[in-house]
Amino acid sequence: MTRTHFDLLNRAQGTLGAVRAGSPLVQCLTNSVTTNFVANTLLAVGAAPAMVDIPEEAGAFTTAASAVLINLGTPTAEQRAAMLEAAVAAGKVGTPWVLDPVGVGALPVRTSFAKRLLTLKPNVIRGNASEIRALAGQGSGGQGVDSVDATEDALEAAFVLAQSTGGVVAVSGPIDLVTDGDSVIRIANGHPLLTRVTGAGCALGAVVAAFIASGDDPLATTAAACAVYAIAGELAAEVSAQPGSFAVSLLDALSSINDQDITNLGRVA
Amino acid sequence: MTRTHFDLLNRAQGTLGAVRAGSPLVQCLTNSVTTNFVANTLLAVGAAPAMVDIPEEAGAFTTAASAVLINLGTPTAEQRAAMLEAAVAAGKVGTPWVLDPVGVGALPVRTSFAKRLLTLKPNVIRGNASEIRALAGQGSGGQGVDSVDATEDALEAAFVLAQSTGGVVAVSGPIDLVTDGDSVIRIANGHPLLTRVTGAGCALGAVVAAFIASGDDPLATTAAACAVYAIAGELAAEVSAQPGSFAVSLLDALSSINDQDITNLGRVA
Amino acid sequence: MTRTHFDLLNRAQGTLGAVRAGSPLVQCLTNSVTTNFVANTLLAVGAAPAMVDIPEEAGAFTTAASAVLINLGTPTAEQRAAMLEAAVAAGKVGTPWVLDPVGVGALPVRTSFAKRLLTLKPNVIRGNASEIRALAGQGSGGQGVDSVDATEDALEAAFVLAQSTGGVVAVSGPIDLVTDGDSVIRIANGHPLLTRVTGAGCALGAVVAAFIASGDDPLATTAAACAVYAIAGELAAEVSAQPGSFAVSLLDALSSINDQDITNLGRVA
Repeated sequence: MTRTHFDLLNRAQGTLGAVRAGSPLVQCLTNSVTTNFVANTLLAVGAAPAMVDIPEEAGAFTTAASAVLINLGTPTAEQRAAMLEAAVAAGKVGTPWVLDPVGVGALPVRTSFAKRLLTLKPNVIRGNASEIRALAGQGSGGQGVDSVDATEDALEAAFVLAQSTGGVVAVSGPIDLVTDGDSVIRIANGHPLLTRVTGAGCALGAVVAAFIASGDDPLATTAAACAVYAIAGELAAEVSAQPGSFAVSLLDALSSINDQDITNLGRVA
Repeated sequence: MTRTHFDLLNRAQGTLGAVRAGSPLVQCLTNSVTTNFVANTLLAVGAAPAMVDIPEEAGAFTTAASAVLINLGTPTAEQRAAMLEAAVAAGKVGTPWVLDPVGVGALPVRTSFAKRLLTLKPNVIRGNASEIRALAGQGSGGQGVDSVDATEDALEAAFVLAQSTGGVVAVSGPIDLVTDGDSVIRIANGHPLLTRVTGAGCALGAVVAAFIASGDDPLATTAAACAVYAIAGELAAEVSAQPGSFAVSLLDALSSINDQDITNLGRVA
Repeated sequence: MTRTHFDLLNRAQGTLGAVRAGSPLVQCLTNSVTTNFVANTLLAVGAAPAMVDIPEEAGAFTTAASAVLINLGTPTAEQRAAMLEAAVAAGKVGTPWVLDPVGVGALPVRTSFAKRLLTLKPNVIRGNASEIRALAGQGSGGQGVDSVDATEDALEAAFVLAQSTGGVVAVSGPIDLVTDGDSVIRIANGHPLLTRVTGAGCALGAVVAAFIASGDDPLATTAAACAVYAIAGELAAEVSAQPGSFAVSLLDALSSINDQDITNLGRVA
């Protein structure tokens, strides 16, 4: 199937509208560093966050959730147990879930845990190039939580992961890559200030979860989430040139972005 | 006792002044999602936050604290142990404490834990309508951490809880209800943007704790806290129309709100 | 060695430039309240944060990090184990590390834990006057996490700690004191709004870590970090009079501060 630039922007507009209309309940099991920003991002985009991440609650809640985000940024033992519960439950009831393998490759506990989660077949994996490569068994991860690899260099790894999970893989960077192991969509939106705010990647993972809860065609819907988020980053950078105010403006832009903004600014292929 | 609109606004002004003058030390055992916003809210309103929530420290610290907030948003096992310590100690030494039963009803671990805390008789319970109903054994909770019930539908549940604890119950919503199981005060202030910021409810729980540390008459003082907070929300919405900047302006408004604002905007009955 | 006002401002400019050029990887094991603000502060100043704080990852990662921050704000059992790992590893491989003894004195678990960490000889200790006094065995700590002692009253305690660890001690307050147990540098910059934002002290600890990773002469480099941070606070207060927007402006100022600002505003002796 060929997806044109026009088709993809159209889907971005449609899925954003569906998120705002339906307010999908997104369960997040995410890191302590950016959990506030992730929750506020979901609220800004029109979704309903629920940070339910303790054992004996996480699995049960997955049944009620529209989608689940599992982000490995600060994975305590208790949270890892809850993540496993949620991923297993998501598979059983068919709740789509997103894996964000923060720091995988560079850090041993989360690396082996991420490989275990991989066998539970996340619907989407979103990470930077180094994380995606490390998760696919290539390279040794980034510098801490930052990528040391170029986005295009993770394309083969993204294909391998997409094919082994049967899901979608999104590689974030100056140009985002999104693949289902067959087609590739590239999003050339975004702004360098997104790398100056902690959790900008984590928040994108949450937006992807909200979008896949609200649209079919996981590849195009994941790309739509990446495009809307990156365009909001450009809108925010127009009003805020420094990182503190940029983070605030990013939330404002995710709340106010409209179809015209997406048509005018979208660069998707 | 009949409390007029004028009496209640007068108390709101007086207690806010007392908080600013006395800077009560508010111990918070609260969720990881909004702990930063809760601490900044307390600082903005003039109180001194101390997020002391590990076992063997939490109980001892309660003796020094002016008030305690126990918020069940992300209750890890270690935090639950600390919460129990703090609630028991608060009862022993007479430190007033606020219970915020986030997500109770929908989520099993915190639901049974909240019922245990109930037996320790919190001085104030603050929650949304679904949480208050679930805590009283009515209904099955909200959608995640959001209410699915109208505020007035929780009035009976609020009465039941207030009578069984001998404390005050505040139900947050478009119109806040505050009751001691006898009288009811309604606060018709606030703004829809408060539902677009994660932790707006959690932060109100903290403000209630700061206020009850600084005033007698728990019913009127809790209502005063709700009124000041909701009016600050209106002031913030005057300068910020989107959620990211609204959250920042809410902190600014809590710091700058004055007696005239309360007189001009307060709608309390 | 005598360090003039001019020398110290010159070092502040040089080390800030080195941080921005080299983007040191700062591992943070810090509290859940302010971890987001700490990470954003490091990004704003030009460093790369990595909040790696679980056992079996923390020690291994220290080898790759340029510097380590250990902040005792909310020290869960799991985090304490990770902190011990990191401090031991830092000593072995020579990674400089900063200890921020939040709440020490008033709170028993962290007080005894901080004394254990002291034996591992942190390169820098940064705290308020009550924390520094309590850590040195003087006084009984502050009111919660706030100081009840004047900065100058902690000078002797700072000397004792610097001499026993062979490191540097920075006492934060209206006038910061920095000592290596021999010389003392005083920084008379800063703004009262820094006390109205939670984590303003925690974030300074992180900036100190980034700076000591990027400069020799730990005493002068620690003082340089305190000066740059405090001057950024003054710049932020010029544009934001209330605490919510001040916190945002502080991040902006840390990103935009330049050599001229440091020359114009620095008050270091």
